[in-house]
Order: sequence, then C-alpha cells, then structure tokens
Amino acid sequence: MAGSVTPTLHFGVVLFPGFQALDAFGPLDCINVLSWSENISLSLLASSLDPVTTKPSALPGAIGQRIMPTHTFGTAPPLDVLLIPGGLGTMGSSPILQDIISFIQRVYPQLKYLITVCTGSGLAAQARVLDGKRATSNKKVLKTIISLGPQVHWVSQARWVTDGNIWTSSGVSAGIDATLAWIEKVFGKEKAQDIANEIEYCRHESASSDPFACLHGL
Amino acid sequence: MAGSVTPTLHFGVVLFPGFQALDAFGPLDCINVLSWSENISLSLLASSLDPVTTKPSALPGAIGQRIMPTHTFGTAPPLDVLLIPGGLGTMGSSPILQDIISFIQRVYPQLKYLITVCTGSGLAAQARVLDGKRATSNKKVLKTIISLGPQVHWVSQARWVTDGNIWTSSGVSAGIDATLAWIEKVFGKEKAQDIANEIEYCRHESASSDPFACLHGL
Repeated sequence: MAGSVTPTLHFGVVLFPGFQALDAFGPLDCINVLSWSENISLSLLASSLDPVTTKPSALPGAIGQRIMPTHTFGTAPPLDVLLIPGGLGTMGSSPILQDIISFIQRVYPQLKYLITVCTGSGLAAQARVLDGKRATSNKKVLKTIISLGPQVHWVSQARWVTDGNIWTSSGVSAGIDATLAWIEKVFGKEKAQDIANEIEYCRHESASSDPFACLHGL
Repeated sequence: MAGSVTPTLHFGVVLFPGFQALDAFGPLDCINVLSWSENISLSLLASSLDPVTTKPSALPGAIGQRIMPTHTFGTAPPLDVLLIPGGLGTMGSSPILQDIISFIQRVYPQLKYLITVCTGSGLAAQARVLDGKRATSNKKVLKTIISLGPQVHWVSQARWVTDGNIWTSSGVSAGIDATLAWIEKVFGKEKAQDIANEIEYCRHESASSDPFACLHGL
C-alpha cells in the first residue's frame, strides 16, 4: 500500500522533442500503477521546463502531445532508475541529444537500474554505457542503432535484453514488457502480474521471443 | 503520406484529473503514427488550459504526469472522432466529470465516431449515448460501470465492442486494440497492421476474445 515503509525508489524519465508517446507512457503506466502500492518518486527530465512535444520535427504534418517536465537535466535529483524512451527524435544530432547523452554518462554510475525503450538504446550506446554489454533496440532501425554503438553486443532477436542492471527493449510496445520484467525482478512476479492484470496487458513473458525481427530480415 | 489530398480527420481526446495514462497514450500513439501518412488534426480537451495530471486524487502517494490541453470543452473545434479514456478519475461525481458528460451529450450527434477506453465508457453511459447499444468496459470494475448505464447492453467478455459508430474497449491496453480495429475499419487492414508493426504491438484481432474477464468471474 502507498505509505508502506519500503524506501522510496526514485524514478527518472528523459524527455525530448519527438519522443514516441507509447515508449514513455507504456512503461510509465506500469510505474504509475506500481506507485499505488509502493513508494515511488518520479522526475520527468528535459532540457528546460517548457512542455516537451512528441511531435517529430522531421514530419511537419504529424500531430503530437505536450508533456510537462518536472526538472531539467541540470536540476535532476538523485535517481535510482532512469528510463530512456526512443522515437524519431533520437535520430541525428542536436544540442538537446548531446545534453541527454552527457546526462546519461554522468548519472549512470549512480543508478541502480537503467531501462531503455526502442531507439532510446541508441542514446545509451552513444553515452558508452552499453559498451561490452548485450542490448537490443527497435527492429526496423536496428542497423542504424548498431552503427551508434559498435562496442555493444547487439541482439537482433529479442523482445528485451537484460545485462547486469540494464534492461533494453525492442520497439515501442516492447517497453511495457521490459518494464514488467524489471518490476518482476525488483518487486516479484506476483506484483508484475498484478500490474499486467490491472492494465489488461498480455505480457510477452519470454525475453527472446521476438515477433517483429523477422519482418526486417533479422 | 502527410500532405495527401484526403480530408483532414479531426480527432479530440477528453482529459481529466486521474485519467489513466495508457488509456489515452496507447490510442494516441496509434493516431500519432497514423498522422505520419494521413491528414489528422488533434485537440486535447479539458476543463481549462492548465496541465492535466494522470495522478488519481484518491491516492495521495501515487505519481502522475501532466499533459497540456489544447482547448477547453467550451472552445473545442468541430470534431469527427472523440476518444474518451478511463481511469480512477472517472469514478464518483465532480463538476469536471459533469462538464465532460454534458460535452459528450452535446457533441455526439456531430461525431463520425466515438471511441471509449476502459471506464471511459462509464462517462459515455452517463451521457446516455450508449443507451440501447452494445458496449464493454474495464473488467475489474464492470459491475460499477453497469450501474451507470442500465439501458446499455453491456458485454462482459470482449476485448472491444463495436456498435454503429461507437467503439468501446475493455481495460487500459485494450484501447490499443480498439483503436487499431477502428483504423482498420476507416483506413483498411494494411494500414492498421502497418501501425501495429511500427509500434511492435501484437494485436488482439478478435473483438470477442477476452483474456481478463475470467479473472473477475465474468
């Protein structure tokens, strides 16, 4: 129950223009429900405190939604868990992406856990925190992501991959499965299944079973 | 492709304190991706232009995220499609919920389509737009929702239900399936599958197959 005596787990989520909505809000919905029974704090981190849009700048006709951050990368409180969503906004280079890559480099040594969704693993790869580790990413653009982390052991068929304290998921919806797998590891299988039932989500329970790799010749 | 000559489809989403994040952002992610290839406009509707939190007021220890609306219920533009998410914030009675119920009553006659997710069907039921129609809702709280719409033909085992121009889904994640089913109806099966592949989501393709009803004795 909320108010239990377990220590608060400090959760942070990186936001940037063109993040994919479900990459963030699939995992966040799981963490929101987790916070109904466990002590969780949440920081939504961005380059400024202005609302952050999901609209990809490369697609002028696309729609988007705007989310309020709670902290900048410079004012982020100490974190236990960092979640990095992906999306078209991870592609290319920009001062905001460079800030995020520097932030990941800076905070990773203090984290208990790192979770990436979709092309969020490309940002983690550029921060070199995946070097020497097994990881996965969105399957449609895996080749591009591989080029961002040549020292990473990329897994081309996986719903998600765990290596040490890092969970990396395949594209978009797979972030929900990776997050539920992380909840199972940290809070137990019953808690993970309770949350899946609460959100009426049929979990992919096998990390290695990937229904989408074959669509892209992987 | 964006910029095609098909008429713009005007999409609206109702926001209120304590809406369930994934109820809105599962369907919205599908609509976001749809807008990469079709002409879509989006209005996020709330009682004021202040950010709307997903945090349920009944759970003081819970975390939440804050989303920026684009219009109030009073300034909403003409809409073709209205999406009503659910969540703990739909429960009980409040001036904001009364405003939403009045808004649904007022705009439904002009809509081409209405989509509800989870307990969002309880708001539609109170607006009496489901009377005489088949509909479903979140399975954990179906009995409560049934009491809000005694003239509705509630379906206790369904991932989603279509009746006329109304799509109602089961809890939370089921909103993604209902939205993809709606996209299949309006834009064709290939488009729906393309979007499911883009977000690496394994669709529930049968509306009547419900993995969660049995958990609640339905």
